[in-house]
Amino acid sequence: MYDLIIIGAGPAGISTGIYAVSRGMKTLVLEKAKVGGLIGNVSTVTHYAGIIEGETGETFAKRLEAQAISAGVEIRYEEVTDVSLLSDVKTISTNTGVYKAKNVILANGTSPRMLNIEGEKELTGKGMRMNAAKHAKLYEGKHVYVVGGADGAVKEAIYLAGFAKQVTIIHFEDKLGCIAEFKNKISKLPNIDLKLHSVLHAVYGVEKVESLEIANVETGAIETIEDSGCGIFVYAGTVPNTELYSELELKDGFICTDEKMQTSVKGVYAVGDIRVKTVRQVSTAVSDGTIAAISAAANI
Amino acid sequence: MYDLIIIGAGPAGISTGIYAVSRGMKTLVLEKAKVGGLIGNVSTVTHYAGIIEGETGETFAKRLEAQAISAGVEIRYEEVTDVSLLSDVKTISTNTGVYKAKNVILANGTSPRMLNIEGEKELTGKGMRMNAAKHAKLYEGKHVYVVGGADGAVKEAIYLAGFAKQVTIIHFEDKLGCIAEFKNKISKLPNIDLKLHSVLHAVYGVEKVESLEIANVETGAIETIEDSGCGIFVYAGTVPNTELYSELELKDGFICTDEKMQTSVKGVYAVGDIRVKTVRQVSTAVSDGTIAAISAAANI
Repeated sequence: MYDLIIIGAGPAGISTGIYAVSRGMKTLVLEKAKVGGLIGNVSTVTHYAGIIEGETGETFAKRLEAQAISAGVEIRYEEVTDVSLLSDVKTISTNTGVYKAKNVILANGTSPRMLNIEGEKELTGKGMRMNAAKHAKLYEGKHVYVVGGADGAVKEAIYLAGFAKQVTIIHFEDKLGCIAEFKNKISKLPNIDLKLHSVLHAVYGVEKVESLEIANVETGAIETIEDSGCGIFVYAGTVPNTELYSELELKDGFICTDEKMQTSVKGVYAVGDIRVKTVRQVSTAVSDGTIAAISAAANI
Repeated sequence: MYDLIIIGAGPAGISTGIYAVSRGMKTLVLEKAKVGGLIGNVSTVTHYAGIIEGETGETFAKRLEAQAISAGVEIRYEEVTDVSLLSDVKTISTNTGVYKAKNVILANGTSPRMLNIEGEKELTGKGMRMNAAKHAKLYEGKHVYVVGGADGAVKEAIYLAGFAKQVTIIHFEDKLGCIAEFKNKISKLPNIDLKLHSVLHAVYGVEKVESLEIANVETGAIETIEDSGCGIFVYAGTVPNTELYSELELKDGFICTDEKMQTSVKGVYAVGDIRVKTVRQVSTAVSDGTIAAISAAANI
């Protein structure tokens, strides 16, 4: 029996864990993959106050993990398969065990959105849906395509431009939707070009990408590009990981909370990207975790 | 003419500055002393996700400063003496200049509360109201007194116990008001003792503290302790630095904001410890700054 179970070990979940332990709560973090969440996969962590210069998602995630363990947070690498949240004692089932707690904090964030186009699934990891931080070096001197025009996409395009011969950003709107800092940076990088009003329509190949189709969203015209061995990096939004949380009040798939991070069910809190909020940044996720842990500590 | 002027360079102000510049805002930070705010003075920074192990307030503040400068934030070390916030263009006067901006973010936090007891003013810096992070070594083998029983006080008492022969915590309540982590730590430190139901009543001396008086709040009895050269560290709460902000809606001296950090006046935001909020931590201050900068970027 735990005082608190946290589902998800991104910045929100780790911050929650560190604060919960400091408040004397017996705390378990359940994580299906690794500490860091989506930010653990980025090429560079930007704008979070106190970050180390040149920080990568990987180094940041490693420090979060070390800090949590040093603080006494128990982390188990198990995938949550079912939850029962309405009773005073909450039950969390994983692929290998069943856990009970008085409080549960849902911190399992969002997942990258699938494009649901031809070839996406078959070629994932074989040139399609690659990870810039991990795979940029594989594309030295080659052409890469970045799908998406928001901050996450443009940041990785800038990073990839340091390796690839040419970076093409494919974005469905008429201009990029990123911050001024990134717009300034790409204006100075001659090897980034934009394909606006455009979406990736299909990818073809077997063990690698051989060609891709780009559709113009205004005219419907489809352009086929033969580019054997190119890399495609997709940052086309995210979807909340709330499929198990039908007991809670949701809005557009995200969990509704009050300002103490409590959901519609007593003893159940949501923090970070998974909850309804306007600003989704590391800093706001970490703050959510702080507030939720302190709130939950009053409920043991 | 700036897009944004930020008053105060603690974690909230620095986070605001970093985000504001990334959104393309011409941004000035005005700081009367040094980057870091109150947290820059602590012996150890605890619980902030991503912190470096063993981080001191000083090392954290230095990293915040370097990060802000590297991001392109302009910081001027001037004391704000007057503000005029109601017009569309806000005017901020300092001891050396006058600045104008479309948006102002108030991030100048709180100041340690004075005890207003005999000898406090005269002996400040001479044994009274010392800074644990800076002055602990001066008290190796000596007796020190910590005034206060909340997290900030007990954290510094634990730090001081690594240097001083004996640490006495003077606290007016019947038990400490700190987190479990700190309670556990002091229970293992034989050289910390507690004087509960007690307040520091007076300090005496000329170039150093010679004696102090402790009053029992229940009985009114006053105990005099002769302890030449002892150190007294005061962490007895804080007061908001809002004396210039009478144009804004305040509550108990703190600035009221909405969830976007906007105050009662358009274009004026408040972030960090200075605003009405329930959880005052580095993480919540940094998050406030993130949200305020993004809000203000929509107002240029």
